[in-house]
Amino acid sequence: MEYFKQIICLDFIGSEYEESNWQLVDQLAGKRLLMNKSESIFERELSKTDCLLVKLGAKVGRDLIDKAPNLRYIGMLGTGYGGIDVAYAAKKGITVTNITDYATESVAEFFIGMLLDQLRDLAKAKAQAKAGDYSDGAYNGSVIKGKTIGVVGLGNIGLRTAELAQAFGANVIYWSKHRKPEAEKAGIKYVSLNKLLATSDVISLNLALNQKTEGILNAKRVMTIKKGAIVINPSPMELINFPSLTKRLKKGDMTLILDHSDEITTEQDKILQTFDNCVMYPPIGYLTAEATQLKRGIYIGNIRNYLAGKPSNTVS
Amino acid sequence: MEYFKQIICLDFIGSEYEESNWQLVDQLAGKRLLMNKSESIFERELSKTDCLLVKLGAKVGRDLIDKAPNLRYIGMLGTGYGGIDVAYAAKKGITVTNITDYATESVAEFFIGMLLDQLRDLAKAKAQAKAGDYSDGAYNGSVIKGKTIGVVGLGNIGLRTAELAQAFGANVIYWSKHRKPEAEKAGIKYVSLNKLLATSDVISLNLALNQKTEGILNAKRVMTIKKGAIVINPSPMELINFPSLTKRLKKGDMTLILDHSDEITTEQDKILQTFDNCVMYPPIGYLTAEATQLKRGIYIGNIRNYLAGKPSNTVS
Repeated sequence: MEYFKQIICLDFIGSEYEESNWQLVDQLAGKRLLMNKSESIFERELSKTDCLLVKLGAKVGRDLIDKAPNLRYIGMLGTGYGGIDVAYAAKKGITVTNITDYATESVAEFFIGMLLDQLRDLAKAKAQAKAGDYSDGAYNGSVIKGKTIGVVGLGNIGLRTAELAQAFGANVIYWSKHRKPEAEKAGIKYVSLNKLLATSDVISLNLALNQKTEGILNAKRVMTIKKGAIVINPSPMELINFPSLTKRLKKGDMTLILDHSDEITTEQDKILQTFDNCVMYPPIGYLTAEATQLKRGIYIGNIRNYLAGKPSNTVS
Repeated sequence: MEYFKQIICLDFIGSEYEESNWQLVDQLAGKRLLMNKSESIFERELSKTDCLLVKLGAKVGRDLIDKAPNLRYIGMLGTGYGGIDVAYAAKKGITVTNITDYATESVAEFFIGMLLDQLRDLAKAKAQAKAGDYSDGAYNGSVIKGKTIGVVGLGNIGLRTAELAQAFGANVIYWSKHRKPEAEKAGIKYVSLNKLLATSDVISLNLALNQKTEGILNAKRVMTIKKGAIVINPSPMELINFPSLTKRLKKGDMTLILDHSDEITTEQDKILQTFDNCVMYPPIGYLTAEATQLKRGIYIGNIRNYLAGKPSNTVS
């Protein structure tokens, strides 16, 4: 197998990727540099580099690519690659890869966790017991069994979420861009998006953001969400029309649960924080030891597969 | 169908059972009195009563039964009936009924909720986000999938707990007084109690308290619980040898999660509160709208079935 001549691991210094993991990369390159873009020697080294490894949020534009005439491979340690000019990379014959599906279980289990926390008031109960108060008078929860759970977007995470909800005995319905015959055979029923919103006790949003999904929960749809519903959104906030969402939250007849991600503006954040019926978590749905291990395995695997002439997870 | 002449609903005043539910009882009796034992007219009314409805913790001893020559039926609104002298009641031809299995789903789902809260640090994450801090650096959770989950006691609740854990992709093993061939066919593997304790990442205790189960997790067994294990006990604390438990908690290599119930003494409580690796909830595992509705339905059903000559849930 042919190896890379020189790898730059860009802007990883002080970040999540530990030295022990780079040792696997070392086996695939003559030389490996761990450096930041701001370093004075960066451009000189970049010109000699045939492999660039980057992390979420990395900006790899036309100007940077032009400064790397030997570049053949860009590996993204994450799913999103919006900052990489993949069209220009493709034109230059550069393969760009990313990592998907490493956090399916983590995110689907997190959905069940957030839902049970909400249905059973777990956080409050635990805090109360910690303070030495074991009274049960304030609790009248409800179970997942028997609830109608609507999954919007039946990709890997949506499907696993649906399967777990079914195991609890929920009545699971879905809407997705494409019908999923296998899921339907397993009893997950297809309905229109409008019907899903109007009839689900719990709604799980699992859509990627693109031109077709931006604002898919438009003003009219936000108002038709079932009274009392719990909407759980681990996906980008741009899926939901924000002014309508706040209007609906103000009515107090719906609960929104979300893992707070970067795309929420400070202004939106201030508004959401005022609602008791908006519950937020840090973006930790994908953060588990198992997901991190899978992610690293796929990352190294992508590099190996490229070198072996069978590139995997290419996006360019 | 024959009806009761007079029902006394004992010591329910000011408690959970609402007036609307008593209306169903009214249809089954000529007269219904809602009264407390302390009332002066109690004994006089008791002597005319053929049906006594009581709640958890009620004391119905020989002396009280002797004062109720017309009594034919005692209905307990709950599972435990330790305060009722059922042997003496049986001798007097009195049928005693209780309610079981109304909270199977509620308790099993609560187990998953407590487990996910622990594995993903949900309560801390939510509190942190509520305070406007959305950083994810402190989180490195883990998933249920792939864990070995040991269920001690495979009754209704234990079995449902095992099924849910299996749906998440856990490797589920069990120990129970009797082997359960149906569960084993479904892939829930029988092991000895000692092996279960030594190999399970998560242990769920689902045993009723009796002479054989009291202290079943004895000093030796408590010390063999797998390093790093999470032990979840929604059952009576008397199952575990308390001094050994505190010794093990002090070592810091095990987490205990429990719903704090009455049988924990104040002294035990003070000790448990000192451990960061002992997480407590109020006893709310069985408290859901669905369980309460089921419970009431069974309660009324027991009375109806008795009157129809086919008594159900009898314990005497």
